Amino acid sequence: MGWTVTVPGPDPTALTQLTPLLFLERSADVFGDKRAITYGSRTLTYRQFSGAVVRMARALQASGIGPGDRVAYLLPNLPEMLVAHFAVPLCHAILVAINTRLSGTEIEYILNHSGASLLVVDTDLLPTVAPHLSAVPALREIITLDEVGRRPEVPSIDYSKFLERGSDDPLPFRVDEENRAISINYTSGTTGRPKGVLYTHRGAYLNALAEIIHSRHHPDSVYLWTLPMFHCNGWCTPWAVTGIGGTHVCLRAVDPALVWKLIETEEVTHLNAAPTVLISLANNPAAAPFGRSFTVTTAGAPPSPTIISQMEELGARVVHVYGLTETYGPYTVCEVRSEWAEGTLETRVKLLARQGVAYLGADPIRVVDEEMNDVPRDGETMGEVVMRGNNVMAGYYADPDATTHAFRGGWFHSGDLAVWHRDGYIELRDRQKDIIISGGENISTIEVEQAIVSHPAVMECAVVAMPHDHWGERPKAFVVLKPGAGASEAEIIAHVRGRLAKFKAPDEVDIVEALPKTSTGKIQKYVLREQVWSGREKRIN
Amino acid sequence: MGWTVTVPGPDPTALTQLTPLLFLERSADVFGDKRAITYGSRTLTYRQFSGAVVRMARALQASGIGPGDRVAYLLPNLPEMLVAHFAVPLCHAILVAINTRLSGTEIEYILNHSGASLLVVDTDLLPTVAPHLSAVPALREIITLDEVGRRPEVPSIDYSKFLERGSDDPLPFRVDEENRAISINYTSGTTGRPKGVLYTHRGAYLNALAEIIHSRHHPDSVYLWTLPMFHCNGWCTPWAVTGIGGTHVCLRAVDPALVWKLIETEEVTHLNAAPTVLISLANNPAAAPFGRSFTVTTAGAPPSPTIISQMEELGARVVHVYGLTETYGPYTVCEVRSEWAEGTLETRVKLLARQGVAYLGADPIRVVDEEMNDVPRDGETMGEVVMRGNNVMAGYYADPDATTHAFRGGWFHSGDLAVWHRDGYIELRDRQKDIIISGGENISTIEVEQAIVSHPAVMECAVVAMPHDHWGERPKAFVVLKPGAGASEAEIIAHVRGRLAKFKAPDEVDIVEALPKTSTGKIQKYVLREQVWSGREKRIN
Repeated sequence: MGWTVTVPGPDPTALTQLTPLLFLERSADVFGDKRAITYGSRTLTYRQFSGAVVRMARALQASGIGPGDRVAYLLPNLPEMLVAHFAVPLCHAILVAINTRLSGTEIEYILNHSGASLLVVDTDLLPTVAPHLSAVPALREIITLDEVGRRPEVPSIDYSKFLERGSDDPLPFRVDEENRAISINYTSGTTGRPKGVLYTHRGAYLNALAEIIHSRHHPDSVYLWTLPMFHCNGWCTPWAVTGIGGTHVCLRAVDPALVWKLIETEEVTHLNAAPTVLISLANNPAAAPFGRSFTVTTAGAPPSPTIISQMEELGARVVHVYGLTETYGPYTVCEVRSEWAEGTLETRVKLLARQGVAYLGADPIRVVDEEMNDVPRDGETMGEVVMRGNNVMAGYYADPDATTHAFRGGWFHSGDLAVWHRDGYIELRDRQKDIIISGGENISTIEVEQAIVSHPAVMECAVVAMPHDHWGERPKAFVVLKPGAGASEAEIIAHVRGRLAKFKAPDEVDIVEALPKTSTGKIQKYVLREQVWSGREKRIN
Repeated sequence: MGWTVTVPGPDPTALTQLTPLLFLERSADVFGDKRAITYGSRTLTYRQFSGAVVRMARALQASGIGPGDRVAYLLPNLPEMLVAHFAVPLCHAILVAINTRLSGTEIEYILNHSGASLLVVDTDLLPTVAPHLSAVPALREIITLDEVGRRPEVPSIDYSKFLERGSDDPLPFRVDEENRAISINYTSGTTGRPKGVLYTHRGAYLNALAEIIHSRHHPDSVYLWTLPMFHCNGWCTPWAVTGIGGTHVCLRAVDPALVWKLIETEEVTHLNAAPTVLISLANNPAAAPFGRSFTVTTAGAPPSPTIISQMEELGARVVHVYGLTETYGPYTVCEVRSEWAEGTLETRVKLLARQGVAYLGADPIRVVDEEMNDVPRDGETMGEVVMRGNNVMAGYYADPDATTHAFRGGWFHSGDLAVWHRDGYIELRDRQKDIIISGGENISTIEVEQAIVSHPAVMECAVVAMPHDHWGERPKAFVVLKPGAGASEAEIIAHVRGRLAKFKAPDEVDIVEALPKTSTGKIQKYVLREQVWSGREKRIN
């Protein structure tokens, strides 16, 4: 017995390499005159969107960008950021979309680590990074986008001038190999140094289809960009919404009153956001029933039953998803079961607050013990969440050791601890890794600790997450001062804010005599966490 | 410049070979207790469905079936046919689902050409094929499914007895290479001999996702099996509905009154059917508004504006798709544009009766002239429809010449002639190939001609399509008798019915003195077609 039938080929007639470029190619063809992007008074049809992508790709090529080169972007959710998600791959280069909330030092690290040749930057964000650019030797050119009327303080070329280098000569919306990298997304690692998560054309394509299916996008979708595109490439949504032929509504900053206004005037049908953003929206005076079919896809932290009920009362269908940068954004979805409707609202929203089951397109998720055996599905035994397959990153860029470690046993180790319920749904309970998730943003506790101990008065410290009603979690520091030295809580916080992105500075600093330690001198963070989280069922929020 | 960044791998942790088996694996895990299949009073949950698939796959293995072997099925739309779509691939064998309307001779040809080792057959269909089984030497065993209380006339094993060979030992829902064959679907070729169209695991997976997206399936979908599963594997819907976790409602035969009853009692939300079936449904006395969100996906012939309006009046959303066996079923969809709503009903349904644009997941469709140049998008110039990519078959089984011919120029040649409208939508107008499409079934005119000339009184003949209100098209024959010989229209029709599937026999036979011919003696079929279709805008219906 053997494979007596193989297929002829794969013949290129019968096999197209998967890439999100195909999505824009199709929508430009099918929905040419349709509104692809709206931003304030600007509108681009799909034909114009595709044209802008070709022109930018040609300008990048004319500037020496070719296959495998990295192009960095530091932009809010502007139309140019959507263009980037297609133009950079169109010249077979790799998009590095950088978190706009990071500090200059952090951005410098990412630019150097990725080896980006070009940086496209908003002039309002330039002051953060400008002082660091001399320390990024590989960076050949800065392209500035000026919406705020600021004069760039470093030699640079204006975005519209840069485009003049390009042309409208068509480029094929095709790749020769779907397993090549399309983007690198930096994530706060547990080591304190950001790691570059590699996405492939194939992975991005398949994940975008899964987003379409689980968020139930359709050609009349009007998607509001409340989720930053620098987060896991906006969970692949720049590709998904373009694929289905919906409309992107861009947004410079998430101002709740503006969001409500846009929901009404643009007739928005879908948005993605961390629970923190939903809390701001639901509690804004402008909050009003959506008045049309409306889907809110949320992740970044477990949504509370309260916010789920509030969104439902406003008329939204809440899709609760969970994932990591390493899984292209969402990997699980809490599939709503029709039988839940029979229970009380309280029971139902509690069920919906669980992280759920694997995405369509993802391999089944597992919760495992230390020997990689499945934990019982009893809703009580904790284990680590592990994932694999087409929704898992190709690896960490230029970090084979970290990749090998993350992929040990043939599964990606999330570092998240969960229980597995009888119905197969997982529910996060705790975290192995030293990460705090604040408003959907990762903060490495080790990174914060390193910033704190760089203060001359500090001897040692430990940072843990503490629960926070609005942000989900915030960092709290326990600090031991050097003998005879003095520093106030405020001084230490200010010290951190000078070194890291501001959102990473602790909200509270407790000056203590000593930290709890093991007999071998290792700090027992769990003791501090138990203290901070006492009375709570979970150790994440 | 070169590829300076490649991804590490593809590491199996980050890459799962695409196969529809993943769909059942996920749904059995996520929707274990949910109703997967309903058939009369029988119900299978997803856990039971998956269990039935494992047991059948194990029974196949115990019977010597292994990778690459072909397993033929001749069944109505029963639960066992859904099981086949997973059980056969689960042992890496290839499913050959045979059209139940074919004649014994035709089935014999398919069994021999595919080299099937086993045949699973409904006892009600066995009499057609039984006399031919001695002429199929490769066939090792017959497995009968008896719903009608008929004793098999040939040595065979009952389906439930056969299952006893199997076990519940799990099998991995995985394949080692996504480009391997999953099924062979035989289609009436223009040469008169059925050709075996090869589908791959990858193609089936991607097409199923596209079906989910375009028919807007969701986990609460209840799908009624009015479309035969032997047609392009039911347009990949056995895989699609299983993937989304919906419910399959099986059906032995399409009886309009029963269909209406099931729509009500099973709370059906989706069905696929050729326009002919829709006409029967709309005109049945039991027709009543659907009373819930309802999607009708139709293909197989251009639906008339009349039937589109009728279905819409009953409350259905009509999704008009077009494709061929060679394209896994649908390749295009007539995407409904919101601006159409502003026009009159007449304009709108006329727009919707066009075949449309490429599927999400398909490469852009083209309409080309004989030199493979695009025809102008003027709604007037005709050209041939060509397709390529992941929605195109891997090739014809054991027929490299036919594959090369069909794929000439790197595109699959449909043989369908269309105009390309200004908005990018295609509209079929005519057919290059000698095919008649009757109620969604292909009939080769050459095959019918060969059957007619085998009558001793016939000298020569030509068969062309004629328009038919219910079936779309039906065969009409022009026959020249041998000098001095005599045969009536009825005799000739009866002669064909004895040789081919009954639906292939001509509805009308004109005994004529001579056929129109070129100076070199070639029959001018187009002259006959012009005569039959005079006064009509298109040459297909």
